Amino acid sequence: MAKEALPLPDAYALLEPGPVVLLSTAHKGKPNIMTMSWHTMMEFEPPLVGCVVSGNNFTFRALSATQQCVINIPTVELSSQVVDCGNTSGSTVDKFEAFGLTPMDAELVEAPLIAECYANLECRIADDQLTGRYNFFVLEVVKAWIDRSNDNPRTIHHRGYGTFMVAGETIKLPSKMR
Amino acid sequence: MAKEALPLPDAYALLEPGPVVLLSTAHKGKPNIMTMSWHTMMEFEPPLVGCVVSGNNFTFRALSATQQCVINIPTVELSSQVVDCGNTSGSTVDKFEAFGLTPMDAELVEAPLIAECYANLECRIADDQLTGRYNFFVLEVVKAWIDRSNDNPRTIHHRGYGTFMVAGETIKLPSKMR
Repeated sequence: MAKEALPLPDAYALLEPGPVVLLSTAHKGKPNIMTMSWHTMMEFEPPLVGCVVSGNNFTFRALSATQQCVINIPTVELSSQVVDCGNTSGSTVDKFEAFGLTPMDAELVEAPLIAECYANLECRIADDQLTGRYNFFVLEVVKAWIDRSNDNPRTIHHRGYGTFMVAGETIKLPSKMR
Repeated sequence: MAKEALPLPDAYALLEPGPVVLLSTAHKGKPNIMTMSWHTMMEFEPPLVGCVVSGNNFTFRALSATQQCVINIPTVELSSQVVDCGNTSGSTVDKFEAFGLTPMDAELVEAPLIAECYANLECRIADDQLTGRYNFFVLEVVKAWIDRSNDNPRTIHHRGYGTFMVAGETIKLPSKMR
């Protein structure tokens, strides 16, 4: 899977449709993965992403301590791994090992990219004002990667309790919005 | 379109898949609608939603002044209205009138529900700490409505520059996540 750098101002289009993502971190030599649906774009340039990471999650500690992570965007082919990552805790499981996912070195952060995901966003915490109250982090995307061979990524979108909507057709409308 | 009240703890499943929504407000007798994709769930109970409303938008003033709004969730049948609402400003256009949308009284807030949308979430601002810096509002959903006759709502999801992904099939996976 050959990936190329994606210009940062284009990163928003990956997250705006609301895909389930895999948040990867590495802390004290332990790489980890968390399944996440609570995220939103907050700014185009530099790209800012707001997201909620529950304080109960192993990832919360790693993210807070290292201030960095990768947002990896999986497609439907990875749905069993997405669910497996959500059903387990990094405190007891090495999810890369257990679920056959491949860590790759990121360029600017210490957290690993997940090779099997069609896009990866390297992030650093930009603002933690709302972390104490809502477990909400504002992340800045500092480097973005995309596999351009996948021109219609079938992302998955959580509808609650194990139901997921799979991305359908793409339509073009006369929008003046970015 | 008959709507029933949706229990508030179930509201998250409407927004988590990342649909484009229509944010409605009313200020000084002027109802208005804004198209929005930058939103995320932040808490289940009470349901909290974080969203970005650009300071350039007419809606920003109305929301800031009234502290309330409705998040309306359209399906693909309304896509031309969704785009029309995004391409125009409430400073010059009455969007309900211009685009044939029907305002309905909300129960707990002063902003109108959009009748044609299959679900509507009445909201009040819960936290504006990040409004000055990021135009980010934390909203509390105080009342939720849903049209139960639509059991597979084909929501639309913005991919940038007028391209939208239309919700595809729903799959069930063995997730232990809520």
